[in-house]
Amino acid sequence: MAQALLTIDLDAIRANWRALDGLTTGETAAVVKADAYGLGVDRVAPALAEAGARTFFVAIAEEGAALRKVLGPGPKICVFGGHMAGDAEMIREAELVPMINSIDQMLRHVEALPGHAFGVQLDSGMNRLGMEAAEWAALRDIAIGQNLVLIMSHLACQDDPNHGMNAYQLQTFRQMTDGIAVPKSLVATGGTLFGRDYHFDMTRPGIGVYGGRPYMDARPVVEVSVPIIQVREVSPGESVGYGNSWVARVPGQIATISAGYADGVLRGIGPKAYVWANETRCKVVGRISMDLIGVDVSAVTSMPDRVELMGQRQSIDTLADAAGTIGYEILTSLGARYARRYTGA
Amino acid sequence: MAQALLTIDLDAIRANWRALDGLTTGETAAVVKADAYGLGVDRVAPALAEAGARTFFVAIAEEGAALRKVLGPGPKICVFGGHMAGDAEMIREAELVPMINSIDQMLRHVEALPGHAFGVQLDSGMNRLGMEAAEWAALRDIAIGQNLVLIMSHLACQDDPNHGMNAYQLQTFRQMTDGIAVPKSLVATGGTLFGRDYHFDMTRPGIGVYGGRPYMDARPVVEVSVPIIQVREVSPGESVGYGNSWVARVPGQIATISAGYADGVLRGIGPKAYVWANETRCKVVGRISMDLIGVDVSAVTSMPDRVELMGQRQSIDTLADAAGTIGYEILTSLGARYARRYTGA
Repeated sequence: MAQALLTIDLDAIRANWRALDGLTTGETAAVVKADAYGLGVDRVAPALAEAGARTFFVAIAEEGAALRKVLGPGPKICVFGGHMAGDAEMIREAELVPMINSIDQMLRHVEALPGHAFGVQLDSGMNRLGMEAAEWAALRDIAIGQNLVLIMSHLACQDDPNHGMNAYQLQTFRQMTDGIAVPKSLVATGGTLFGRDYHFDMTRPGIGVYGGRPYMDARPVVEVSVPIIQVREVSPGESVGYGNSWVARVPGQIATISAGYADGVLRGIGPKAYVWANETRCKVVGRISMDLIGVDVSAVTSMPDRVELMGQRQSIDTLADAAGTIGYEILTSLGARYARRYTGA
Repeated sequence: MAQALLTIDLDAIRANWRALDGLTTGETAAVVKADAYGLGVDRVAPALAEAGARTFFVAIAEEGAALRKVLGPGPKICVFGGHMAGDAEMIREAELVPMINSIDQMLRHVEALPGHAFGVQLDSGMNRLGMEAAEWAALRDIAIGQNLVLIMSHLACQDDPNHGMNAYQLQTFRQMTDGIAVPKSLVATGGTLFGRDYHFDMTRPGIGVYGGRPYMDARPVVEVSVPIIQVREVSPGESVGYGNSWVARVPGQIATISAGYADGVLRGIGPKAYVWANETRCKVVGRISMDLIGVDVSAVTSMPDRVELMGQRQSIDTLADAAGTIGYEILTSLGARYARRYTGA
């Protein structure tokens, strides 16, 4: 078997969600957009429901419709992208709660689905999704008079607790919502760690549930184990991989392992990445190919059949740092070629 | 609908394969590993079979078994990763042809499946997969006495016709195979363009079939169209997206579009990428989020519902250049969230 193995620990996912839930007195939702950050919403969402999550967030209505089939009736499914043209039937049939982002969406929603529950997303400074203060001022009384079930916004800098933007957005959100008797939500994982001022009625953790920064107490959720296809000797002067970008300076041993950028090992990660052969850290050498990676195993005394790319010895954040990105992208890039195993089911 | 649309032109795939086939007198195989470079092997492989491809290459036996179900009996399915421990049953049942990479694999294959067709992969200098000269010298007479159907190697620098490595690997491959009356194959798309010396009995194009460099005459295969969720005004000093990394210097309009790095728009692409709103090129602003991208649409006179991320106006290679990667990775990163439409079926 040259197929790499992705193991997803549903126990860890449940434990991380419960731990984050324990930090607040309000409701804790679960963000499961992008196929639960690439980990399989059909397995992850039911595990989170078991743990106690009653509200789930997805990016687009199509994801919401698929999630409704997974979860069945009951849990609330909120759509960050709101109510787009052509979505009404999906929203009605799957009982989705669109987060309305603009006057256009508001008009579309109340016209197509009068009385159908919705939320409102406000822009508190990120300028990404949500109504501006002026739009909201014009619309709030109308919205409150309809079936408005949640008012939310999103922080731009919640990975950095010291960023002044957090307090600015908190203040802006308060100014836009003070005195309105509708449940409110401002933060995802990062802001959940900022304390009570930021929690309002609901927090919406995503990355922390999946074992990533900035939730440093998270249990790791994913392990990726990759088979070694072959091991070869290289002599000084021999190059490895595409473009001859790596050249051996001393005699050594190179293992070719069976994963590549098609499996989410971002091509740009190459020069700074490692894998683990049992207890030995082994440097990636040469360019990452679509399906293959060269690894310097010269220091390995007893050659295993497989190496660890992510897991107990190397976190998604370590790999993300090597690639100059964030753990979120490591997860969503994992791709479809792995054998997937779920533990703690 | 906030779901982005990925359109895959099967006519263009067939045309590209036929054009590459027309450059050689030998057989032209088709490389369909990694789910046909992310484009869906269940649709792409039958289209290529229609065009005339009779030999297909995948990375691992599991991909081969899935492809056999798609293609049915008849076409040859070769596995670059060779014969790994545990693969025998899959290789036998799906009638796969493993490219044997080492003595270990050779022994495993003839022991488990005596008489079953196999190929041999030789290392001509890339030090990635394949037997070294000494291994091959020890094994070649035994291999030739079995059901050896193909001898292949792979060029490390075939994207660059001027690289000295190409001629070196050609010479090495010849030295290792001259006089052996078994079909031979050395090149993928790049080497196919180098002319007859490099063609041997079979070429193995991949990226050229899918519309990417270095096959400059390729017809584009993919189009990605992304809905605009909302458009907002920004004033000088306002920031957009995570980390406040982009700040408006003049009054403008920002569109938030419904795709992100979970859809293969690599996060690192941000500062250099553009999308097209009809005939207007619009700069990506701020960090790329998992599901959303901010775009400066200030110059757009009539706002469309969707923007083009890839297609007639922007190739996979243009996007790859912006991301500091190659078109191959743009394709394999596309992900599962798109609505997929196949034309030319």
